[in-house]
Amino acid sequence: MPIRVLVYGLGPIGSAVSRQIAARKGFALVGAVDTDRDKVGLDVGQVIGLDRKLRVRVTNDAVGGIKQAAPDVVVMCTTSSLKKALPSIETVLKLKTPVVSTTEELSYPVGRNRALARQIDVMAKKAKVAVLGTGINPGFAMDALPVMLSGVCERIDSVRVDRVQDARIRRLPFQQKIGAGLTTAQFAAKVKDGSVRHVGLAESITMVAMAFGWRLDSITDKISPKLATTAVESELLAVDPGYVCGIVQDGVGYRKGQPVITLHMEAYLGAPESFDAVTIEGSPRIVQRVTGGIHGDIATASMAVNAVPQILRVAPGLRTMIDMPIVSYRAL
Amino acid sequence: MPIRVLVYGLGPIGSAVSRQIAARKGFALVGAVDTDRDKVGLDVGQVIGLDRKLRVRVTNDAVGGIKQAAPDVVVMCTTSSLKKALPSIETVLKLKTPVVSTTEELSYPVGRNRALARQIDVMAKKAKVAVLGTGINPGFAMDALPVMLSGVCERIDSVRVDRVQDARIRRLPFQQKIGAGLTTAQFAAKVKDGSVRHVGLAESITMVAMAFGWRLDSITDKISPKLATTAVESELLAVDPGYVCGIVQDGVGYRKGQPVITLHMEAYLGAPESFDAVTIEGSPRIVQRVTGGIHGDIATASMAVNAVPQILRVAPGLRTMIDMPIVSYRAL
Repeated sequence: MPIRVLVYGLGPIGSAVSRQIAARKGFALVGAVDTDRDKVGLDVGQVIGLDRKLRVRVTNDAVGGIKQAAPDVVVMCTTSSLKKALPSIETVLKLKTPVVSTTEELSYPVGRNRALARQIDVMAKKAKVAVLGTGINPGFAMDALPVMLSGVCERIDSVRVDRVQDARIRRLPFQQKIGAGLTTAQFAAKVKDGSVRHVGLAESITMVAMAFGWRLDSITDKISPKLATTAVESELLAVDPGYVCGIVQDGVGYRKGQPVITLHMEAYLGAPESFDAVTIEGSPRIVQRVTGGIHGDIATASMAVNAVPQILRVAPGLRTMIDMPIVSYRAL
Repeated sequence: MPIRVLVYGLGPIGSAVSRQIAARKGFALVGAVDTDRDKVGLDVGQVIGLDRKLRVRVTNDAVGGIKQAAPDVVVMCTTSSLKKALPSIETVLKLKTPVVSTTEELSYPVGRNRALARQIDVMAKKAKVAVLGTGINPGFAMDALPVMLSGVCERIDSVRVDRVQDARIRRLPFQQKIGAGLTTAQFAAKVKDGSVRHVGLAESITMVAMAFGWRLDSITDKISPKLATTAVESELLAVDPGYVCGIVQDGVGYRKGQPVITLHMEAYLGAPESFDAVTIEGSPRIVQRVTGGIHGDIATASMAVNAVPQILRVAPGLRTMIDMPIVSYRAL
């Protein structure tokens, strides 16, 4: 019997999740919830860009949709904000259904969102199901992967993760989210209003620190524009020299006054090489790299889908990537 | 309160584990068991190469030693063979004490040692404690790490792991175990009698296949000598051209007639570059490398010690690296 999945939120990530669920053996896409009037009522196959119908209509009625579809798991891809996601999570948990979500702030909420984390944990235990926030970043590249690599160390002084991505191959909303094409003043305004930023560095830093048993003094998270030095273009956007071509974001966790966890992200049109690198200063020293990087759009959807079989096997409550078995690819 | 650890087996790995337990905060070395007459009765600090006494005497009486020391966990580093390790594991479990072991065949025994695996699982559940086999290889570099990396994939066609080590920096027993200094005829004889080989490729292949949900047709495991082309020496051994300077070992798992899991190991004196590399052919393709490699002697001891806090938190029974939370470095 395939695992019955309802996808809640059909933006770019929810659509990518839905395409995997529809394509991969062992999964059945049994429901789809979205509030967008242009999507409600349509067949989900049409909404997510397939050339076939999936005989599942998008609904904006979450309760009715879940009751009718009776999914084993809900995959939720609605927002980065845990506060905004909370009512939907509550709705799903009241219907005693496990949740895998790509909400960045759910990946390790005990730092900045301790009260919400507790609330979700209580609701999930009451419903006897598990809840997990995952994705490629946060959820893997800058947290769970360095935690995994640390297992070979007898001592760790500091850890640094570099994630550099050429944004030319990413979807348009991503290219816009990193500020490509803006002036520096426009970029600064969008950083200020929160519309240009990567969400999750603080969550990743907290996850790594908790795994290592480190108590941090403070966490910083700084955003800077990357300026084009020559004209650069993707299939979707063109940026002239002097304009913003992307984002540089640095998260640092301090312990006893020292920067012990450093997460450095660059995502911009025209990065000469995409890569993900982890360096652990300790014994032994570990220098690790994924050449070409890990493509964010596919990988976030994969992580969410690969977590679906796992979420059914773990203990009820709020789970994280470091307190459940490894989320791996699995052919069902 | 520190976690009380008894180390069972004071060979090179058990000694490295004991040094970490003695040095790392949050652990206390409360007992040591070994059958070697030259070690029994000595202070364990002396046996493991410390310049201070640890006020723990090595005993060859496992039952008495465990009863007296009352450890929270036993770390066992006695043999690669699960069959040979079984009586000692049974002894420890009868005393209701969790076991972390570097016995290679315990890392994923359900393939070749299914009956023994079942027996250990039953004993562990009866004792209400967990048992884990871990280490760098098997346990990490060629199995748990590629499994971890696979989480970002929506499809996997095949996986290949390359582990190349310059054996010059490894301990003498390791240099001898890989056949350094032998003629090809001597090497062949030692492969035949089982004294020259790496144990664990079949276990690693089985672990990866189980994680991916793949049923394999067959597993092969081939050993070849690496011949010195120029004179090469370590601090401990010198090898002339034409003699064996190390080992090449290839493990392959076949599925539907295709080689889908390929593990390639080279360990020899004079390897120009040590590295660990994982390549996943799939979507997305993943090309990962640890530059300089992961040093086997430190890393195996680290994995065992880092598993100690984890083994106390997991459900009773026989655990493996892919059905328990990530084993990470942890400052206690």
